[in-house]
Amino acid sequence: MERIYLYDTTLRDGAQREGISFSVEDKLRVAHKLDDLGVAFIEGGWPGANPKDDLFFERLRGESFKHSAVAAFCSTRRPGLRAEADEGLKKVLAAGTEWVTTFGKCWDLHVHAGLRTSLEENLAMIEETVAFLRFSGRRVIFDCEHWFDGFAKNPDYALASLQAAARAGAEWLVLCDTNGGMLPKQIRESVGAVRAFCEAQDLAAGLGIHTHNDSETAVANALAAVELGARMVHGTINGYGERCGNANLCALLPNLQLKMGYELVSPDQLGCLTEVAHFVSEVANLAPNDHAAYVGASAFAHKGGIHVSAVQRNPQTYEHIVPESVGNRRRILVSDQAGLSNILHKLADLGFRFERHDPAVAHILQQIKQLEAEGYQFEAAEASFELLVRECLKVREPFFTLEGLYTACQTFPDQSVRSEATVRVRVGRALQHTAADGNGPVSALDAALRKALVGFYPQVASMHLVDYKVRILEGNLGTSALTRVLVESSDGTGRWTTIGVSPNIIEASCRAVIEGLEYGLSRGRR
Amino acid sequence: MERIYLYDTTLRDGAQREGISFSVEDKLRVAHKLDDLGVAFIEGGWPGANPKDDLFFERLRGESFKHSAVAAFCSTRRPGLRAEADEGLKKVLAAGTEWVTTFGKCWDLHVHAGLRTSLEENLAMIEETVAFLRFSGRRVIFDCEHWFDGFAKNPDYALASLQAAARAGAEWLVLCDTNGGMLPKQIRESVGAVRAFCEAQDLAAGLGIHTHNDSETAVANALAAVELGARMVHGTINGYGERCGNANLCALLPNLQLKMGYELVSPDQLGCLTEVAHFVSEVANLAPNDHAAYVGASAFAHKGGIHVSAVQRNPQTYEHIVPESVGNRRRILVSDQAGLSNILHKLADLGFRFERHDPAVAHILQQIKQLEAEGYQFEAAEASFELLVRECLKVREPFFTLEGLYTACQTFPDQSVRSEATVRVRVGRALQHTAADGNGPVSALDAALRKALVGFYPQVASMHLVDYKVRILEGNLGTSALTRVLVESSDGTGRWTTIGVSPNIIEASCRAVIEGLEYGLSRGRR
Repeated sequence: MERIYLYDTTLRDGAQREGISFSVEDKLRVAHKLDDLGVAFIEGGWPGANPKDDLFFERLRGESFKHSAVAAFCSTRRPGLRAEADEGLKKVLAAGTEWVTTFGKCWDLHVHAGLRTSLEENLAMIEETVAFLRFSGRRVIFDCEHWFDGFAKNPDYALASLQAAARAGAEWLVLCDTNGGMLPKQIRESVGAVRAFCEAQDLAAGLGIHTHNDSETAVANALAAVELGARMVHGTINGYGERCGNANLCALLPNLQLKMGYELVSPDQLGCLTEVAHFVSEVANLAPNDHAAYVGASAFAHKGGIHVSAVQRNPQTYEHIVPESVGNRRRILVSDQAGLSNILHKLADLGFRFERHDPAVAHILQQIKQLEAEGYQFEAAEASFELLVRECLKVREPFFTLEGLYTACQTFPDQSVRSEATVRVRVGRALQHTAADGNGPVSALDAALRKALVGFYPQVASMHLVDYKVRILEGNLGTSALTRVLVESSDGTGRWTTIGVSPNIIEASCRAVIEGLEYGLSRGRR
Repeated sequence: MERIYLYDTTLRDGAQREGISFSVEDKLRVAHKLDDLGVAFIEGGWPGANPKDDLFFERLRGESFKHSAVAAFCSTRRPGLRAEADEGLKKVLAAGTEWVTTFGKCWDLHVHAGLRTSLEENLAMIEETVAFLRFSGRRVIFDCEHWFDGFAKNPDYALASLQAAARAGAEWLVLCDTNGGMLPKQIRESVGAVRAFCEAQDLAAGLGIHTHNDSETAVANALAAVELGARMVHGTINGYGERCGNANLCALLPNLQLKMGYELVSPDQLGCLTEVAHFVSEVANLAPNDHAAYVGASAFAHKGGIHVSAVQRNPQTYEHIVPESVGNRRRILVSDQAGLSNILHKLADLGFRFERHDPAVAHILQQIKQLEAEGYQFEAAEASFELLVRECLKVREPFFTLEGLYTACQTFPDQSVRSEATVRVRVGRALQHTAADGNGPVSALDAALRKALVGFYPQVASMHLVDYKVRILEGNLGTSALTRVLVESSDGTGRWTTIGVSPNIIEASCRAVIEGLEYGLSRGRR
């Protein structure tokens, strides 16, 4: 089978997403992860667009890559100017990459409304830019900007622009759905027509596809282009990109390799996909999408007893692929439908091996059902689940006990609102009675607890609350209903979630915060 | 052109998403929003699966819908049992809906591994279940569970199961990609073959498609099925659903209507799509996806420079559709004039008619943007929006003002936790200083406020809190982040929702509760 080339633009197009701003260090770390993953091309940035990208390419000279070629991005020369005199092109040559990706207008509307030049001049810009880059010893990828709109509105001009790039020596012609508005059917028709044209004109260049997710079909659009002969696929890790994002390589890669039979990377490299996805979201400082295809924490999560026993008898019944093939894992959710098999599986995950009929397992199951009837939900609170198991097995370590709690919140004449908390905490024989302020009762309580504990357990200083979620159960009872609180904590090296339920939001929060601290301490102990 | 029927399963399949737990009230509010949007079918739930769904169908008897038919969901009868004797089927009939959607196994593997019965018995289960439902006066939709895997592995058996349902009188045969592993190409081939089979056997039933997003192609898969003749499309608002979610109706609907030319809803209904998407995410207490196709806050966000001037000269240059056609708006960082028409529209709803260029409108728009920048969010808080408008127009009635607030929460030696609140409330010249207990600080506060007001406004006695939702904004700051509280209140004759935002959960709750009481009073006045 023909080879498909993955082209990653996380560091250029992906960085356009609102909220992402990679440092030079970030970009280098991501580039090396992409190299480990085995993508064929890494688009590093746009020299001259910002100082960060210039510095990145400078730093790159000292780096070596095992699997990936790095490309620098630039536009065609400006109108009415010789390519040699164009500042942007000087900068892209200075980046010193083997490959340069240059984009040009293929939609007559943009030549007028965007560039405000003539159709002829735009063709000259494309041809002379590619020729100049080739003459300067670069290998060239040509991005046909707005290809699909342009080809639909004025096919002759679109084809002429593409031909200009090929004639000048571009090795790849990448058809871009810049506005992301296309549907797979339109992609198939357009790519089919282009392929026929290239064969008729016998243009040597390979075809590529660059799609955006504005119709939520970016991945399918790229696959449709591959069906019709595209051999280079552009995308970003986690589908990051402006507006609705770019085609998501974390879905494209396994779709192409596991379902369409192309070999893009080695099985071991594919096995790192989930790690790469999470790594990039960490570096971008964005929460990973738990519901992402293939790499999301929920992608292979199963609920319900019968369902679970079926999956364990034969994974095929409810899993479209083997989770481990993309470095993900099956998750059995502990929920009120939890059957024996769920629990045994979860216990094994925690390192406790039991026989199916061990009374301890029945005891744990009964405790869980009891607590879930009271509004607890351990699906998302695995740390509290582990503490509960240790409790049932009588191996839960008593680090401290809360003997008293008081929180107050009041408005002052200056309209400000202040919260204060007081706690009585026993550690062994010692009783700590401390107080602290906070933005709200929970942060005051959290601060007071740490203050009481840090003298006994210095590692408490490194722990902090990462997230706090509140849900009211059976909402139609209003604020007198049960309150379920989920707290996510971190000690810098890991994250864990705990739960508290009570009619009183303060008590529920207190339970979750306390278990968060306790789990952190037991974690440090191991 | 043939009609396409939208089938929404947000309330059943969508509710399978980890973390979603709709109350009965939530389900009713969502159902009415879906009716306003104009979906053809609303799958309300699975009678007998949980008490909440039973109560929901009970409550439905009192409700009327303008555009949507409600369907109840159930499985085929259990093996070795007469349909009349099956508890699940009794419950689904008791729900009293015109339409029933029943699902059966179409993959021989599942008949063995899942049901553990014979292939013949499974066909009998399908045929007898459909026949029994028809005999009981129901119109039937048959979900062909695991259709695509089943058809790939054992086409004859898959077709036999589908034929059994059609023969017994199912009006729709819905092909389900239950594991979400299919790609558009496979969908096209399978649906094409089924269609040919149905014509050959002249089965009268229409074809439907039900896809999941495990390959990130759920939307494209549904569109591929429509290309090949499917006329019922299943999905959920925001693509909610287990694992990676269901096909996203918020992308499917505009793709079908704006790009493929089918008319599923009126232009005005399509114009509410963004509001419906945000409403459902608020009710589900999940943050909306800013990068969602069509309805995301970033879907039509443009960065500065040439790009922006081009888009202002000709929106076509960078927008695949007109944002307002789906109720979204272009976001441009500098001098954003968008949103004006939304405001005018909302003001008209409230009975205030203004010219486009009336300074009062600009003032309101500016106030809203200010508050939204502070974390306010008015989609699901119409009552607070109205109070804000009246404030801007200087027609907000001052029923009372809170001059002081104090809440305390403490544990007692008997391990019980009690909350108390004290309020200073001014009504005209009079100052009320009262206190009350509660299950938590918010219910104590609510009780104290009513106690202070009921002497002046007896109708306060009939008002009560119906629901209370909390969301932490910028979760990575933990409990010190901004807290957004939504409170739903009722006076027995109507319901309204108010919002409060503050770093302090007590203050945020207090604002929402106070506006809830104030809106109730102004409502009573009119």
